[in-house]
Amino acid sequence: MRLSDLGEFGFLRELERRGLAQRIANDAARFAPDFVVTQDALVEGVHFRLDWTSWRDLGYKAAAVNISDLAASGAEPEALIVSLGLPGETEANDVVELYEGVAETGVPVLGGDTTSADRLYLSVTALGRAEQVPGRDGARPGDLLVVSGPLGASAAGFHCLKEGLESPLVRSHLRPPLRVAEGKELAGTAHAMLDISDGLASDALRIAERSGCRLMIELERVPVADGVAEIARQFDLDVHSLACGFGEDYELLAAVPEPGRFTVVGRCEEGEGVVFLRDGQPVEFSGWEHFR
Amino acid sequence: MRLSDLGEFGFLRELERRGLAQRIANDAARFAPDFVVTQDALVEGVHFRLDWTSWRDLGYKAAAVNISDLAASGAEPEALIVSLGLPGETEANDVVELYEGVAETGVPVLGGDTTSADRLYLSVTALGRAEQVPGRDGARPGDLLVVSGPLGASAAGFHCLKEGLESPLVRSHLRPPLRVAEGKELAGTAHAMLDISDGLASDALRIAERSGCRLMIELERVPVADGVAEIARQFDLDVHSLACGFGEDYELLAAVPEPGRFTVVGRCEEGEGVVFLRDGQPVEFSGWEHFR
Repeated sequence: MRLSDLGEFGFLRELERRGLAQRIANDAARFAPDFVVTQDALVEGVHFRLDWTSWRDLGYKAAAVNISDLAASGAEPEALIVSLGLPGETEANDVVELYEGVAETGVPVLGGDTTSADRLYLSVTALGRAEQVPGRDGARPGDLLVVSGPLGASAAGFHCLKEGLESPLVRSHLRPPLRVAEGKELAGTAHAMLDISDGLASDALRIAERSGCRLMIELERVPVADGVAEIARQFDLDVHSLACGFGEDYELLAAVPEPGRFTVVGRCEEGEGVVFLRDGQPVEFSGWEHFR
Repeated sequence: MRLSDLGEFGFLRELERRGLAQRIANDAARFAPDFVVTQDALVEGVHFRLDWTSWRDLGYKAAAVNISDLAASGAEPEALIVSLGLPGETEANDVVELYEGVAETGVPVLGGDTTSADRLYLSVTALGRAEQVPGRDGARPGDLLVVSGPLGASAAGFHCLKEGLESPLVRSHLRPPLRVAEGKELAGTAHAMLDISDGLASDALRIAERSGCRLMIELERVPVADGVAEIARQFDLDVHSLACGFGEDYELLAAVPEPGRFTVVGRCEEGEGVVFLRDGQPVEFSGWEHFR
């Protein structure tokens, strides 16, 4: 069977079933009493295009998506390790700019590896410290679902880049937020938490599958970032598809007993899967999954 | 300036000079009182060819080169994080075999990331625990240089692969040793230590540059692995070039006050650079450096 048949999540489940990897489906893995570690790779042509992003923004984003995984674990970032695969003809100044972008996140780079490659590969490991690490398997019926901020800006910014349209939303796509404080706050009470990297639809499904409950999400409650509705109109896109189906918003999604200061988008029930409701009626969504 | 002009080590030094990365030139970085972390990437076509290695051997080697960096830090491996970039048409069973190869090292996989890519890309992070971590900058005049085992088997095995010759040396190239016990033993007294990944010539130069002393290495004392001399004769290669110029032996090189049970290959003096001696006379060597 090919990876494209199994899909990314199906393959990761298979690895866990065989005992070849533990907790690989979590954002970050715990490895000592209070440390967590996470690693994400970005590949040119798959995750970014160098004609759409500056080297500095790319460095920032590569660090930010890993810091986001730490935030989803309620962790305080302590260090980054940056590995690069680069063509030999790369300008050294471009790579320095990439590292400057990494440094803008404020998390120190402790080491890494550079190697030659035919195109740009980045792999970043982030190390953090956390006392309470919510997984993805603790959500239970009765929990409220909250998000840490508005969604859809990254998707809309991506469309602007694709269509060559200048917009402040482009920055949201290139410079995801760092929700470290929110993650630590939510970790105190959350039964399950992750960061929205593949879209609310896909990411909610991970919590539903791991926790063994059904997540009901009311589209009217999903906070949509400023300017997204306008881009949706302009390109004849569904605003909720932008907010729930694309991802890369890097806001946090948590199942909590009490919402605190966060925005409620739905609730957990007995059952399975994710149901999106519009005007109380179920509607369909699909997310982004690698290999499929 | 291009990376190919600056070279890998020149570029890493530039990053450190600008304060953009700390200790990036070490095998592994220390990040909490007693943890070390390291990350190495392997790219298809650069570090391996899928017609020369099985997926299982590849998984083993990707883990082993990182465990070797921990060994060079005197650390006990605790966990691995494995990130893969893979074409969608990859057979899932091949990737399972890769993970089985990783598992053969005995170090648990705690997490990772899989993503689509045009060719196979592996990035492994290894986490370990160490009380004393020798760097590369502590060697001093009067120290003895020791290695943890014989060299050249990986180079000879690589030549056999290239020439389509079956030989037990091929296994040495595909399955590097894990010198964890030796690393912990040496870490107690070593003033500087690293693993021989780029060849004794290149790796000794790193200690010389960081420590500000000259490393004198006597070729007659360099232990050469069984069978290497025969391959050297067969392909008209210099046996010492195989043992000192190629790398991927993943034995440890340390500057120590006393050799203990390890093999002395030379000594540290006042001065700079690395000098290889044959019959007491200096000879030239060059190692392998990415981008150049």
